[in-house]
Amino acid sequence: MDRVKQYIENHHDVFTSELIDLLRFPSISTSPAHQPDITRCSEHLVNALNNLGLTARTYATALHPIVYGEWLHDPDRPTVLIYGHYDVQPPDPLEQWLSPPFEPTIRDGFIYARGASDDKGQFFCHLKSLEAFLKTESRLPVNVKIVLEGEEEIGSPHLALFITEHQDLLRADVALVSDTAMFDATTPAICFSLRGLTYLEITVTGASTDLHSGTYGGVAPNPINVLATILAQLKDASGKVVIPGFYDDIPPLDSALREQVKNLPFDAAQFMRSSGIGALHGEEEYAPLERIWFRPTLDCHGITGGFTEPGAKTIIPSFARAKVSMRLVPNQNPPQIIDATRQYIAALTPSGITVEIHEHSSGSPLMVDTNQPAMHAARHALTEAFGKAPVLIGEGGSIPVVADFKKILGIDTILMGLGLPDDNLHAPNERLRLTNFHRGIHASAHFLHAFGQKKQH
Amino acid sequence: MDRVKQYIENHHDVFTSELIDLLRFPSISTSPAHQPDITRCSEHLVNALNNLGLTARTYATALHPIVYGEWLHDPDRPTVLIYGHYDVQPPDPLEQWLSPPFEPTIRDGFIYARGASDDKGQFFCHLKSLEAFLKTESRLPVNVKIVLEGEEEIGSPHLALFITEHQDLLRADVALVSDTAMFDATTPAICFSLRGLTYLEITVTGASTDLHSGTYGGVAPNPINVLATILAQLKDASGKVVIPGFYDDIPPLDSALREQVKNLPFDAAQFMRSSGIGALHGEEEYAPLERIWFRPTLDCHGITGGFTEPGAKTIIPSFARAKVSMRLVPNQNPPQIIDATRQYIAALTPSGITVEIHEHSSGSPLMVDTNQPAMHAARHALTEAFGKAPVLIGEGGSIPVVADFKKILGIDTILMGLGLPDDNLHAPNERLRLTNFHRGIHASAHFLHAFGQKKQH
Repeated sequence: MDRVKQYIENHHDVFTSELIDLLRFPSISTSPAHQPDITRCSEHLVNALNNLGLTARTYATALHPIVYGEWLHDPDRPTVLIYGHYDVQPPDPLEQWLSPPFEPTIRDGFIYARGASDDKGQFFCHLKSLEAFLKTESRLPVNVKIVLEGEEEIGSPHLALFITEHQDLLRADVALVSDTAMFDATTPAICFSLRGLTYLEITVTGASTDLHSGTYGGVAPNPINVLATILAQLKDASGKVVIPGFYDDIPPLDSALREQVKNLPFDAAQFMRSSGIGALHGEEEYAPLERIWFRPTLDCHGITGGFTEPGAKTIIPSFARAKVSMRLVPNQNPPQIIDATRQYIAALTPSGITVEIHEHSSGSPLMVDTNQPAMHAARHALTEAFGKAPVLIGEGGSIPVVADFKKILGIDTILMGLGLPDDNLHAPNERLRLTNFHRGIHASAHFLHAFGQKKQH
Repeated sequence: MDRVKQYIENHHDVFTSELIDLLRFPSISTSPAHQPDITRCSEHLVNALNNLGLTARTYATALHPIVYGEWLHDPDRPTVLIYGHYDVQPPDPLEQWLSPPFEPTIRDGFIYARGASDDKGQFFCHLKSLEAFLKTESRLPVNVKIVLEGEEEIGSPHLALFITEHQDLLRADVALVSDTAMFDATTPAICFSLRGLTYLEITVTGASTDLHSGTYGGVAPNPINVLATILAQLKDASGKVVIPGFYDDIPPLDSALREQVKNLPFDAAQFMRSSGIGALHGEEEYAPLERIWFRPTLDCHGITGGFTEPGAKTIIPSFARAKVSMRLVPNQNPPQIIDATRQYIAALTPSGITVEIHEHSSGSPLMVDTNQPAMHAARHALTEAFGKAPVLIGEGGSIPVVADFKKILGIDTILMGLGLPDDNLHAPNERLRLTNFHRGIHASAHFLHAFGQKKQH
């Protein structure tokens, strides 16, 4: 490991520069206009993997290509399936970025760019640790398969099919994913719990055309008022989702787990400062971290209807629309939740109003067994790289691939988070701490080395 | 009158063609980009008035110019102040227009264009009746002052000041405004009651930046959810506005008036078909026409917040915003209603959320005395022009100038509506029936002639 570690140290600046090259691609998966950027980014990654000494190619899907690479030269060693995603969220609102989202800029020890932390900067750590082994030892301590997806930010619509159709190709002993965060800037973390997601778009339609609110106000149904009334009845003032049956399948939180969460050094004031939140909302009977990691919730992500330009226009609009998602936890079942939501909203819909509900995507919630060799290897790796033992945490976001790996390939996933909680994911001024990037490369190397000691079954 | 009537008949096609020229100006008052079109339209009207034989000019305001013209050559006759507005609503959504909004198109006896009915096509009737008198008799039967405003669709922010500062210039015996509708296609109407308006924009702000709904969902306040909850609590399911004190100053509806409304041939099914409304909402204890004419209400006109592009983005947005207006009736007081609304919303605002309320505009509600010489002249004129006596109706929309004329100049306004209820005001495919345009010119001529018989006081 000494030569590997030395190689990583010696290539500090080169690795940073290569990350900047990767971050320049505006690989926005939800935007048809950025299709060529997605393609160019995937080709860039195939070249990078081939140059390392892996055998790499893209696999086409119905939308964005999957990058796949492998190094399978030691049948006596276990196989690690590394997953990451090279697509990114849209950068808007652009005017709030201090530097352009696709011109990576280093300020105060952070690299600022869309995708810096979610997820290019994180999965790139693994590529660089593979490079360190291959350039110094000409071999890896484990067999490696790597899958880099281009559709994670739109809900991975084609990944499950790809995994299903390529089960032999992807067979491995464990998956390794870096797409989560450390607990705080000094405390590494392994995430063992992920919330699921179901994302809906609700369209409320009234009259067939916009109407003058003077001539029709008082008798015409107003789709914005109706939509607001529906949204207001999805969640109560205490933060509880009031869709019937929503909480029915959720077991009580394990008391040992609650005790562990309680002992984590969570600084609510700092959390609020760093996120710009003025007050913590939600279920008071749960600690804030429990609410984020282990409790389901519902949020509106976007709403539009009627006249939204500057100025005043007195119409009763023909329709209004909102994007709403529910974060789910074990053992909530996304299809059941969607059915219950449809029925509940139908019952709230007044006469003369049509409500359509479109399902964007769904992902199941998941918890990973914390007592397995790969978990021990991950603990060791993070302790070595960050000088402190990791804590076990949950993650409020959704990584549906982890559920798919379990369901289709039968393997667990190690979520080795290399970001920080205030990396501004999905928001302006997304960033990654450069220290995390470089320690992340070390952590990746330690993990592969330690897990390589495991006897192949 | 015979030569005047003949002149109007003979110029049927010329007048239509001149109206088309006027409708070509995209004089959208709320749009800074259309400032030059507003200017060109005002100059076109000054030229038109001067060419008729009036003395005309523009008066600058802080925003859009007011066109003023006069013919004051008979001190023994009364003076009529004609008001109209040459500005129009924005035409969006453009894709729903069957022909471009500023390329006037005649189909099936209607002229389709933004502003056709609201209000260019209506006030233009009066210009053409003045022309008929001046070209045939070289004089008018009354003295005439004409004010054509360029800011009606943005709430007439500078008109009251103009009237106040030019009281001598504008002094008249009565005002004549055609900016309302007939009762139906065969029944002319005089409008004696107008709802007032107060138009607010509500901005709800949470965190200082958009947040990832996975990382923060369950603890971060969500401005869209909060805005929806506020909007949902402004009005109940029965259509009642629930802002405290909202109805306190409204006297019970006069029973004779209710009886008159009951006798009007209102066809609910036809009303719903023509407007594309699927069901009539609102206060069930009032007839639909009573709800529109004589009862206050509240409507959202626009809402926006978060991610509104196609696709899915999982953010808790930093802010959300809605445009809301309340239609008011006598004796509701706009400033009092606004104060009550501010207090009520403040009480609904949770911690960690900021709500700002911006007042776009306000107009007082009004009722006009139906037993005065100008009313009798108007009844006569409409009966002559349309072959049927007019009914007395209310108007759910707001024409603040009528209240200003009463308050500042001390004069009543005759609202001689020449449009139809389904002219698609403020909506795609606005139109004016050509028959109404031509009969409206006759009605204007009859009114001026009949009112000219009145002894000057």
